[in-house]
Amino acid sequence: MLLGPGPSNPDPVVAGAMARPLVSHLDPFFLRTMDETMRDLRAVFRTVNHHTIPISATGTGGLEAIMFNLVEPGDTVVVGVIGYFGQRLAELAERAGAQVRRIEVPWGEIIPAERIAAELRRGPVKLVAVVHAETSTGAHQPLTAIGRLVREHDALFLVDCVTSLGGMPVAVDEWFVDAAGSCSQKCLGAPPGLGPVTFGPRAMAAVRQRRSAPATWYFDLELLFRYWGEGGGPKDRAFHHTAPVAAIYGFREALRLGLEEGLEPRFARHRAAHERLAAGLAALGLSLFTPPAHRLPMLNVVRIPDGVDDGAVRRDLLARGIEIGGGFGPLKGKVWRVGLMGANATTAVVDRFVGELGEVLKKRRETASVKREA
Amino acid sequence: MLLGPGPSNPDPVVAGAMARPLVSHLDPFFLRTMDETMRDLRAVFRTVNHHTIPISATGTGGLEAIMFNLVEPGDTVVVGVIGYFGQRLAELAERAGAQVRRIEVPWGEIIPAERIAAELRRGPVKLVAVVHAETSTGAHQPLTAIGRLVREHDALFLVDCVTSLGGMPVAVDEWFVDAAGSCSQKCLGAPPGLGPVTFGPRAMAAVRQRRSAPATWYFDLELLFRYWGEGGGPKDRAFHHTAPVAAIYGFREALRLGLEEGLEPRFARHRAAHERLAAGLAALGLSLFTPPAHRLPMLNVVRIPDGVDDGAVRRDLLARGIEIGGGFGPLKGKVWRVGLMGANATTAVVDRFVGELGEVLKKRRETASVKREA
Repeated sequence: MLLGPGPSNPDPVVAGAMARPLVSHLDPFFLRTMDETMRDLRAVFRTVNHHTIPISATGTGGLEAIMFNLVEPGDTVVVGVIGYFGQRLAELAERAGAQVRRIEVPWGEIIPAERIAAELRRGPVKLVAVVHAETSTGAHQPLTAIGRLVREHDALFLVDCVTSLGGMPVAVDEWFVDAAGSCSQKCLGAPPGLGPVTFGPRAMAAVRQRRSAPATWYFDLELLFRYWGEGGGPKDRAFHHTAPVAAIYGFREALRLGLEEGLEPRFARHRAAHERLAAGLAALGLSLFTPPAHRLPMLNVVRIPDGVDDGAVRRDLLARGIEIGGGFGPLKGKVWRVGLMGANATTAVVDRFVGELGEVLKKRRETASVKREA
Repeated sequence: MLLGPGPSNPDPVVAGAMARPLVSHLDPFFLRTMDETMRDLRAVFRTVNHHTIPISATGTGGLEAIMFNLVEPGDTVVVGVIGYFGQRLAELAERAGAQVRRIEVPWGEIIPAERIAAELRRGPVKLVAVVHAETSTGAHQPLTAIGRLVREHDALFLVDCVTSLGGMPVAVDEWFVDAAGSCSQKCLGAPPGLGPVTFGPRAMAAVRQRRSAPATWYFDLELLFRYWGEGGGPKDRAFHHTAPVAAIYGFREALRLGLEEGLEPRFARHRAAHERLAAGLAALGLSLFTPPAHRLPMLNVVRIPDGVDDGAVRRDLLARGIEIGGGFGPLKGKVWRVGLMGANATTAVVDRFVGELGEVLKKRRETASVKREA
């Protein structure tokens, strides 16, 4: 059971799809599969953006693709940093040559919209980037107010929704998001390996108005969409790179399963699993690190009680077939990160996990007390 | 049957491995799988280079990773262009900020070592890049003499062995290759999605001596090897991105199958399939485009006879379950590209293909002659 910060366990149907007979990346059947993947991915991102594809790299690669296409050397980029993945957005922007201004808050907190407003008033900003669901802290950064502010200041709004997409509402068009990037292996429930991205018309205009080609060929959007198509149908396709056909088979199937379930029921299932987990942990005397007002449902950051050995508990759980994640950076050794993503956001999974964790903690305490007595 | 320029049909064992239960990218089991993958990939590249991994992107991404780590803005890079994929190496180098000097020959030809020598004498060169097996023309560029020359001039030698690796000898250490990049889906016989690369000590020294960080975070070697390890074992690993676990399962299995067969027997199998195909095509009155002196075994470029409709024949073959490739650039409409890669380099596959192609050509000729008479 993969209950860490991702990957989650894919549905067997998804795994099976990856083992299906391959066709080539230019086969008419695969070109149709690409179109269907784009259509379903748009539904999941809640956008009408044509430019919506899985990048042939992991989620990080998708975010790099966004940053390197939208940012030109010297551009000012404001990055909201509420944890590790916000820092990473800032690093990506710096690699793309941006002048980066970070808005930082202590880990566990989120950024009030006023701080974004203040930063936008300081002078022209090309792009504002924030993390919607910060996997290192379990914090949910609301986007609606920020999206409006960024649009009012005529900047571009980039959202990292790696952990949220498919597990809680992500409304690209409604929230004035110009570009968003996610991953395949968390709430969407496919294996890791693809970086789903979407680009709105303002983002594409910025790409077309670049003074020079981006410092990447593999992630160059203009070349990529010669292959994924500009909406002209199968004849409109030119080779760029050989698409990861098997991975896209699996991803396509994961999207189909998600839409078949329905996004709202899927979000409700993630919330219900989270609530059941919080109650179960409380019954074990454990508490969540993230303040209740902005807790994520799919990524639960649990305080490690005093005297409990982080690594030992995680090893014991792994021996029982359950993986959870440790803490990152300032939270290392202080928290566990428990993911309830995709197929794992169920009562049965939560109950099994809480039961096993309870037993592991009890045994560790008994061993510790025997040792003390000896 | 995928007889185009790749992907080839993976062995069912490889496809099955991709559908195996996932573990996370930091699971001790997966860290061991990474080490085993590196070990077997070194054997395939014939190198002792520690820095030998599958990049989490397709073959093109792997080549971008090499170029962006080795080249700094302003560096002089010499690129041998014997077809489309040589042009692409030149484009990658330009995106990385290099001053590129191209050595070009007509499509179908190869570059004599003397031309590389002349270019190296013109002034300091940071890196020389060539394509070992040019998929657009079916030409085999010999590397031994060039490798010695490049080393004598103290430049770095980059080889694109996307199409050759696993199907004909690639001897990274013996040929003085400092960095090489391939793909997963051709002669190695896994699905597309990974970019196997290797970096020798001189390449890694160049990376460590960079004046500034590379214009990529996703492909930054220093960050990547914090995750893949610098040889210190499993404790030596830090998160960089979530590895494509399922794809690496499949790739690991493909490498294992290849080494189990043995590299020399595998190369002999590819040569034998090529010879049988050449004889079969000759019996149909068809000839190969590439001069015999430097023909690749795994990628056969066949002249389309006068009056035969390129697209129609490929569609007819596809309807019979056989995919072959069309021509690129100046060879568009003039040639077919027939790949005999990995599991498809067998007598049975060649005989079926030659038989079906013969029937398709016969039927098309009959239809054409009926039309003429009517």
